[in-house]
Amino acid sequence: MTMHAVTFELIKKDHKTKARRGRVHTPHGSIDTPVFMPVGTAATVKAMRPEEIKDMGAHIILSNTYHLYLRPGHELIKAAGGLHKFMNWDRAILTDSGGFQVFSLGDMRKITEEGVEFRSHIDGSKHMLTPEKAVTIQNALGSDIMMAFDECAPYPADHNYVKNSLERTSRWLKRCKSAHNNTESQSLFGIMQGGMYRDLRCQSAQEIVNLDLPGYAIGGLSVGEPKELMYEVLDYATDYLPENKPRYLMGVGSPDCLFEGVERGIDMFDCVLPTRIARNGTAMTSRGKIAIKNAIHEKDFDTLDPECDCYTCQNYSKAYLRHLYKSNEILSSMLLTNHNLHFLIKLMEKIRYAIETDHFSAFKKEFMEKYYGNLEEVKCL
Amino acid sequence: MTMHAVTFELIKKDHKTKARRGRVHTPHGSIDTPVFMPVGTAATVKAMRPEEIKDMGAHIILSNTYHLYLRPGHELIKAAGGLHKFMNWDRAILTDSGGFQVFSLGDMRKITEEGVEFRSHIDGSKHMLTPEKAVTIQNALGSDIMMAFDECAPYPADHNYVKNSLERTSRWLKRCKSAHNNTESQSLFGIMQGGMYRDLRCQSAQEIVNLDLPGYAIGGLSVGEPKELMYEVLDYATDYLPENKPRYLMGVGSPDCLFEGVERGIDMFDCVLPTRIARNGTAMTSRGKIAIKNAIHEKDFDTLDPECDCYTCQNYSKAYLRHLYKSNEILSSMLLTNHNLHFLIKLMEKIRYAIETDHFSAFKKEFMEKYYGNLEEVKCL
Repeated sequence: MTMHAVTFELIKKDHKTKARRGRVHTPHGSIDTPVFMPVGTAATVKAMRPEEIKDMGAHIILSNTYHLYLRPGHELIKAAGGLHKFMNWDRAILTDSGGFQVFSLGDMRKITEEGVEFRSHIDGSKHMLTPEKAVTIQNALGSDIMMAFDECAPYPADHNYVKNSLERTSRWLKRCKSAHNNTESQSLFGIMQGGMYRDLRCQSAQEIVNLDLPGYAIGGLSVGEPKELMYEVLDYATDYLPENKPRYLMGVGSPDCLFEGVERGIDMFDCVLPTRIARNGTAMTSRGKIAIKNAIHEKDFDTLDPECDCYTCQNYSKAYLRHLYKSNEILSSMLLTNHNLHFLIKLMEKIRYAIETDHFSAFKKEFMEKYYGNLEEVKCL
Repeated sequence: MTMHAVTFELIKKDHKTKARRGRVHTPHGSIDTPVFMPVGTAATVKAMRPEEIKDMGAHIILSNTYHLYLRPGHELIKAAGGLHKFMNWDRAILTDSGGFQVFSLGDMRKITEEGVEFRSHIDGSKHMLTPEKAVTIQNALGSDIMMAFDECAPYPADHNYVKNSLERTSRWLKRCKSAHNNTESQSLFGIMQGGMYRDLRCQSAQEIVNLDLPGYAIGGLSVGEPKELMYEVLDYATDYLPENKPRYLMGVGSPDCLFEGVERGIDMFDCVLPTRIARNGTAMTSRGKIAIKNAIHEKDFDTLDPECDCYTCQNYSKAYLRHLYKSNEILSSMLLTNHNLHFLIKLMEKIRYAIETDHFSAFKKEFMEKYYGNLEEVKCL
């Protein structure tokens, strides 16, 4: 068995569901799972000081290879001493491969066996991202967990397209593994593809698990398909992955999806949802989402969430937060981001505790009724 | 002699210049002078948590009556328990009268003896600000120091215009004083006008000092006149004010103007300069201003200022700050604002210490040479 920089410890399995309580060990500390990872796209979790995220209990954040490659450039970050030092974050970092972003560029990219040619969204300049390049960039960044360069097939896509795509993704994964030259302090995770097809998920899993990597992500979900379909895929997808490796569901962060993912054996999640909706004036609370701009909050001197002990809820009223948002004040983004991240990080703490104490299903039911009770359905981003 | 909620203690006079070391006592704590007051226009010092400003040693901030009257409204802030509670700031607050802002509206306002009719910059709605209204609003806000409703005459303006204007300002001041109904916990400061005319400055001073107010501001400066002219007016203007009351020079905050003002006997200053230029990517350092976007900082892994111990300089390089600024990240405004306010607040601490130890002039010379040495001249805002 290969020695990896990142290892996984399975602590406990839920007595009723596939939910797991575990711990991921990295060169920058350990992470209790299931975990939600805040997203710091451009080497900053938007509107947050790193200490704030630490204080609320985050032990790992995600950063984006595509963005950092284009600006400020991975060589610059390497010269700065790596991403941890550059951005003042001494806990674990996971970087994606840039694959998802370049595939999202639509007309501005072209896929070949070699890799993806694309144009920068910043200045239109031409670039090529290959498995080797994606790994080189992530080696320069020095993230603890590096993601393989994969193709995230669109939804919907036919069986033939998805099969070809996942097979190329498997070939790219081998190239990623060969290119990875810093195995002592960085670990490469593989990504399962296969769209919404069970046989292809199974095939993809077999191909990537053969490489004995320290962790596996489930990609190609939360890409526009109905939630029920995502859950259906997750129902079997986690069974195709080894029990002794962490499983990461990419791009998922709404509370319902977190519960459904955990229930199906997912250990790691990331999403821009809490930070993005914060900047748009939406708070996540124990009683569901609140759009702070609504007139109903104008003279509401209560805090966002009576059950929350975050900095924002300790010090500010909804009336004040509404005023800040309507005045386009930066503090609005700062306070709502702090609250939303705190909310999700504490939610994951409660989920972990529920698994430990064998009441995960009861906790899920209780939370879901309060959160979604009388509100419009929240869509995964 | 009237009892005031706000009092002034003159601690020491410089041996060579008119610089004074003093202390202003308010219902929300004492403020060592000379002091620079950060501006929190809309009930927030932009991009800052209140605790950050406290931690760097700020004991008073300024907030704007015009903005708060229009949004969220003074009645709402009163219902919230006052401005201190609303914005989570338990130290002293000074509010301006709204006069300067409504006069700046140009075509959108009309001056009469009664007051100023104007249209909101937010929605064009029609409003009337009078001395009584300005005081009513500030009473509702509950600021420790309230400013009288005055006319800040434009520059240039002829002798006759300025004379009529200052006399109306004096009549308005009496109306402000009569309207003020919360003298136990709030104090009203008068504002000297008189443009660039010595006889009118003298006349204005006599008229306002007669009212025995707890403090006096010098208005109508830093409105577009050459700096030398401002210094010339300050040369005599402070002599017309009583020694036992604090003197406040409105809207001034560049280091050179702070030194020149202190040297002429000014105790209090405020300006949006440090916070505004921070959001535009400019840092104030012991060696002058730095425009962080400049290419020279691209691979500069040193901190902004080797002599600075602020949060930003403790944790981040110029290369990182440049990256944040170029990426339009909110953290850029947060970190540069923190640094600039820290810079000015520490500068004022050093100025106070210099006065205490009789080396103010030497310190001024040393600072000015380092700050302005090889750089373009910095204009007062």
